[in-house]
Amino acid sequence: MSDGAAEAAPAGGLWVTFEGGDGSGKTTQAALLQDWLETQGRTVVRTREPGGTEVGVLIRDIVLHHRGDIAPRAEALLYAADRAHHIETLVRPALARGEVVIQDRYLDSSVAYQGAGRVLDADEIRNLSLWATDGALPHVTVLLDLDPADARERLDADDKPFDRLEAEKAEFHARVREAYLALAAAEPGRFVVLDATLPVEEIAAAVRERVGRTL
Amino acid sequence: MSDGAAEAAPAGGLWVTFEGGDGSGKTTQAALLQDWLETQGRTVVRTREPGGTEVGVLIRDIVLHHRGDIAPRAEALLYAADRAHHIETLVRPALARGEVVIQDRYLDSSVAYQGAGRVLDADEIRNLSLWATDGALPHVTVLLDLDPADARERLDADDKPFDRLEAEKAEFHARVREAYLALAAAEPGRFVVLDATLPVEEIAAAVRERVGRTL
Repeated sequence: MSDGAAEAAPAGGLWVTFEGGDGSGKTTQAALLQDWLETQGRTVVRTREPGGTEVGVLIRDIVLHHRGDIAPRAEALLYAADRAHHIETLVRPALARGEVVIQDRYLDSSVAYQGAGRVLDADEIRNLSLWATDGALPHVTVLLDLDPADARERLDADDKPFDRLEAEKAEFHARVREAYLALAAAEPGRFVVLDATLPVEEIAAAVRERVGRTL
Repeated sequence: MSDGAAEAAPAGGLWVTFEGGDGSGKTTQAALLQDWLETQGRTVVRTREPGGTEVGVLIRDIVLHHRGDIAPRAEALLYAADRAHHIETLVRPALARGEVVIQDRYLDSSVAYQGAGRVLDADEIRNLSLWATDGALPHVTVLLDLDPADARERLDADDKPFDRLEAEKAEFHARVREAYLALAAAEPGRFVVLDATLPVEEIAAAVRERVGRTL
């Protein structure tokens, strides 16, 4: 459905998205980038998906309160609706004013997570998102890459064996990571991949370097 | 996005949709068809879009309460989400049990109305709906055709001139009617087009004749 859409960053300002698993440091790095940009006098809009708008909060509530009961395609369409409204009413206007938008999760999250769930096809999810946003892609996407097995080992060093559910979850998060890395490899001009286990300030410097080149 | 979907009626029972403008008699005819089928011992499920499920009611509330403020693609995606959930959780299970589903409005409404609104492309709306439902199409679609100018004349015979808004509305409804007739012409095997100005019982007999052939 995105065949007719120009896949490109909207004109004006600068749009940066942060991607990666939970606990990879997206919020910390987004805040550090915001501080740096504001000291340079830039106006920064921090936002997120799902739920970055009033309508989006209502949509997210439906998904969260009916999780498990909602048809998979309906859930994907609800996330896409949230995205369509968020981009059209919040992100595009901010960019048109020349502002910087720093966003926690965007279409790469949908492709990586919904694709890893193996119910829906990752390409279809991507096309749905691109139709929703009329082809809008960020200028820069920072992927904070973390091996989910490493993350779990650090969190939970008591060495107890995985049960089946934990093993399934671990496999799911491994597929999410692989999907993220494949997306980054396919669009090296948009993505910067950083090792989430590096010191926070080292990561922040690399983010500033990449964003500074685009400003 | 529907390229991979088989566009066909789900296996099992019988699925009939009613289409046409407001006031064309869809509810009356659906009720008469239900009565006739039930006297023949068939189990009938009457349903509607949007809002045929609990999740669908929540989605419809978002659209209705934010009408005008919601991005057009977000609105189309919300309707598609309602449809995806409705078909997957209500229509397909009823058909799989061998029941008859009589439904007020389906994808032809979306194509005719959203297409007539001229913001989104009718083919894209159709493809979105077909992706939402994995290509589900009814066995029979009854289009109750009514010239909107005739309808208005009958309702409002005091001969006052149209204002601009009324003229725009009249043009919109004329485009909806044209879109419906084009859809019917493209799928003569699925559609039966009936003149909504005929006597109620005459229309009901024609609906019974068409549905009876498919049973």
